[in-house]
Amino acid sequence: MALTREENEELTQVERGTPGGELLRRYWHPIAVAAELTPERPKKRVRLLGEDLVIYRHPEGGFGLVREQCLHRGASLYYGFLEDGGIRGPYHGWLCDKTGRCLEQPFEPEQSMLKHAIRLPAYPVEKVRGLLFAYLGPLPAPVIPPWDVFAREDGTHQIEIHPVLNCNWLQMQETNLDPTHNTYLHNKTAYVLGLRSDWKFRPISLDFEVIEWGVMKRRTFGGDAGYKEEGHPAIFPNVLRHSSGSGPIDLHFRVPIDDTHTRTFWLGFDPSPDGSVVEEADDPPYEYIELKDEEGYFHMRSFSSQDSMAWETQGPVRDRSVEHLATGDKGVALWRQLLKENIEKVKRGEDPMGVIRDPHKYQIISFSASK
Amino acid sequence: MALTREENEELTQVERGTPGGELLRRYWHPIAVAAELTPERPKKRVRLLGEDLVIYRHPEGGFGLVREQCLHRGASLYYGFLEDGGIRGPYHGWLCDKTGRCLEQPFEPEQSMLKHAIRLPAYPVEKVRGLLFAYLGPLPAPVIPPWDVFAREDGTHQIEIHPVLNCNWLQMQETNLDPTHNTYLHNKTAYVLGLRSDWKFRPISLDFEVIEWGVMKRRTFGGDAGYKEEGHPAIFPNVLRHSSGSGPIDLHFRVPIDDTHTRTFWLGFDPSPDGSVVEEADDPPYEYIELKDEEGYFHMRSFSSQDSMAWETQGPVRDRSVEHLATGDKGVALWRQLLKENIEKVKRGEDPMGVIRDPHKYQIISFSASK
Amino acid sequence: MALTREENEELTQVERGTPGGELLRRYWHPIAVAAELTPERPKKRVRLLGEDLVIYRHPEGGFGLVREQCLHRGASLYYGFLEDGGIRGPYHGWLCDKTGRCLEQPFEPEQSMLKHAIRLPAYPVEKVRGLLFAYLGPLPAPVIPPWDVFAREDGTHQIEIHPVLNCNWLQMQETNLDPTHNTYLHNKTAYVLGLRSDWKFRPISLDFEVIEWGVMKRRTFGGDAGYKEEGHPAIFPNVLRHSSGSGPIDLHFRVPIDDTHTRTFWLGFDPSPDGSVVEEADDPPYEYIELKDEEGYFHMRSFSSQDSMAWETQGPVRDRSVEHLATGDKGVALWRQLLKENIEKVKRGEDPMGVIRDPHKYQIISFSASK
Repeated sequence: MALTREENEELTQVERGTPGGELLRRYWHPIAVAAELTPERPKKRVRLLGEDLVIYRHPEGGFGLVREQCLHRGASLYYGFLEDGGIRGPYHGWLCDKTGRCLEQPFEPEQSMLKHAIRLPAYPVEKVRGLLFAYLGPLPAPVIPPWDVFAREDGTHQIEIHPVLNCNWLQMQETNLDPTHNTYLHNKTAYVLGLRSDWKFRPISLDFEVIEWGVMKRRTFGGDAGYKEEGHPAIFPNVLRHSSGSGPIDLHFRVPIDDTHTRTFWLGFDPSPDGSVVEEADDPPYEYIELKDEEGYFHMRSFSSQDSMAWETQGPVRDRSVEHLATGDKGVALWRQLLKENIEKVKRGEDPMGVIRDPHKYQIISFSASK
Repeated sequence: MALTREENEELTQVERGTPGGELLRRYWHPIAVAAELTPERPKKRVRLLGEDLVIYRHPEGGFGLVREQCLHRGASLYYGFLEDGGIRGPYHGWLCDKTGRCLEQPFEPEQSMLKHAIRLPAYPVEKVRGLLFAYLGPLPAPVIPPWDVFAREDGTHQIEIHPVLNCNWLQMQETNLDPTHNTYLHNKTAYVLGLRSDWKFRPISLDFEVIEWGVMKRRTFGGDAGYKEEGHPAIFPNVLRHSSGSGPIDLHFRVPIDDTHTRTFWLGFDPSPDGSVVEEADDPPYEYIELKDEEGYFHMRSFSSQDSMAWETQGPVRDRSVEHLATGDKGVALWRQLLKENIEKVKRGEDPMGVIRDPHKYQIISFSASK
Repeated sequence: MALTREENEELTQVERGTPGGELLRRYWHPIAVAAELTPERPKKRVRLLGEDLVIYRHPEGGFGLVREQCLHRGASLYYGFLEDGGIRGPYHGWLCDKTGRCLEQPFEPEQSMLKHAIRLPAYPVEKVRGLLFAYLGPLPAPVIPPWDVFAREDGTHQIEIHPVLNCNWLQMQETNLDPTHNTYLHNKTAYVLGLRSDWKFRPISLDFEVIEWGVMKRRTFGGDAGYKEEGHPAIFPNVLRHSSGSGPIDLHFRVPIDDTHTRTFWLGFDPSPDGSVVEEADDPPYEYIELKDEEGYFHMRSFSSQDSMAWETQGPVRDRSVEHLATGDKGVALWRQLLKENIEKVKRGEDPMGVIRDPHKYQIISFSASK
């Protein structure tokens, strides 16, 4: 069940032109929080799928996302000027709009054709619930799926920005297909640290169902307090939808920065008790999360710290040729299979799983009744 | 007399499967101080011969040393649980004992044969005078030699833990075969820094004798105060035994962390003036040594700082194809020859120099009368 | 007009034996400030053209510049002893003079020929206006050109030491052939930061003339306040001569540390108002310049910070195969052409541009009347 090194590379690489990188380029990914872009500091250097970019809020309105290095001689557009409908290079003043068209080259002759022959890599960016999403794939871009967490107005939203982890995105997402990890990683750890009063091992049987958007998980807990639980769907290719009964629902985006670095953006939705619509600010509150202690060890006092430990200590890119998958890993194996199938789809020029083209097809995407 | 690049690699590489690494894997090496493993913090991440490991003190007694990455999906066992006779993975709870056998896989069917088919890399660890020694080679492990510093009870012991140096172990050990370095590196430096009141050059003639455990050194100082001195044997392959007349004796272990990092563990023995047996605590006192100043330069105010300067500034792995060995380096050349011969022995499946198999053969290994 | 990767390598590499490195080794480069070498701390580790060196002020007078690693077993001569006409190794006391000859090997037999057969890499060093210049090429060394900034006595001198930038020297020097960068990088940036009260775009036409020492630049500003300006010659291969009318003149040396690191040494000359000779201290005042803010971003509040941003953000070695040179870059293209021609000259064994052999040929090298 272990992967060959070649299979592992295909599933984990994120750079443009790699099979995995091309798959990931068919989806929108959050890369910044809109509120981080202020009038005083409207630009931010970001890195996504191995590409160095600058995202900006234009004083004339809207957001832009372009390659950091300018078209001309490569100085950083982070130090550029936002004006005249675009971003102007800080070195010689070439102006490009947010689609990457070069509008002006101040020191070129007026009749020069050069500016029509070149184009700055630039990408669509959309704001949803205070998060800025980017799409780095071939145009036209698909629709950002109207997940219920995005669409619902009967509650409040919050954002968490997690630290960059020094590991590949897939070892993060695999945990989302692996419901048994709760028993030890979260519950036993919390018990040992005195954060919960008891802990008991209960056998679990697992069931996975491939749905339109990814995989739905079902657990049956054995033992004296046996019960069934459905939920926490893994959304293809790199998102977890987490919820607890009628309470909050959150989306955890595992955003690949490059092959060996990933950041979680977390968007939470907290329904109002009575189902009433809540007036929210345009930008939900956001906070930066800490995962480690002063010595650089994971503090293990939160689910996020515990998960991050399990992810990062596997190494920059987990070598899946030496692992020993077991019965409890069948969700992991299923996800890898879905990745392979969808990489093949992209190679054939087809849309992979969950890509939506018709903006009117869905008003809202909810999940099962229980969750 | 300079080495080719290939010869240099063979003598300096420490990874599993390399000729030098296989030679070093026939010996026990200190890797931690037992007193560092407390009930509050009973685990420690260590690195030896290029392998990332976790050493632990089990609450049920004894010490374990295992690969840091768990067998299953590779999370760090540093965050695991010490219980039920072994260490349990923090991610999914697989339990392995200190020999590496997998005892439990909580979410696997009872009849699963998987746990019998796999084994966590695990290594013997022994405590001697407060130091934890590890053996990473083929079993059965040889005997830890009963050096007099280990065995003697007529005095007290102390431990020093030196900082990791960014250099290969061999350039550290070579100094131990090089008695002329005292004149300038230690004595002249101390004189220039005002730490000793005089300094005078005296010619030295050198003599080296291969003994069962390594090489015995003899110096004859010329000039008006000429005298002979024997001592400071170099113990094969990476230890210095240092003594001064009837006073303290110390063992300096140059422990290879990987090809380009080495740490000295130092065990000192201070004989009681009247030769009486001294009641000692189970764990001798230990201290961490500083070698550099705030700017990152070697402070040069101790023998250890002076030696470490000479080692680390040669670079991560000294290129011995460009050096100019001279008459004074004949001990260095002899040691390289011993390394080559013993690498060949290991290749032939024989035990190299100084490996002891019979635990009854030696009660104590002392050195010459004078030392 | 973009370069191939091979062309780019040839122009940017600085190591010994590379075409670019051999060209740069035909010129003197400043590497330290003499006043930094005090009696208490007379040695300094420096790196130039990819070579690790130690520069020292000898207590008996004069300066020396030698390879950091000693001839014998490679310990750092930074920790050596300055005595008996040279620098003595800290490890075994081999003594070399400032030409690299080995004068003593204390533990070798007197009749040994070894010391005559070996030589420590050592280079000429000369002090000019408080700056220490080194020459790393084939002997005999050429003359240090008597630039007016060096030779003039009718004013005062100052030195600036800039931080090491993580980029190749050529992307720094290219700016010196690129007069249009002032409009945006310096003037508009200052305007946006509130450091100047107005800013207006004016078209510029450029003219470049190859002179004996490099390239003279001429700009004609169009628009309502049109005027002509000549000046700021680029001195081959890596120096800018900057001046403003009758005021200060400065030389900006872009000193290659290695392929991806460069430091600017800056020597300024401020003429006395009445042209009278000024008595100066032997060592001009010097200061260390800051380019970045606490977050690690360029603060952009000085010309140096602005230029450094444009240089360093191009990356460690700018990939010139992806750039889009335009009309305004004709000076840049001209400089690359000069580099290629002079690399070829060096390959043929000829002196490249601006190398002076006859110390009597020039008393002072001034530039055009206007500058």
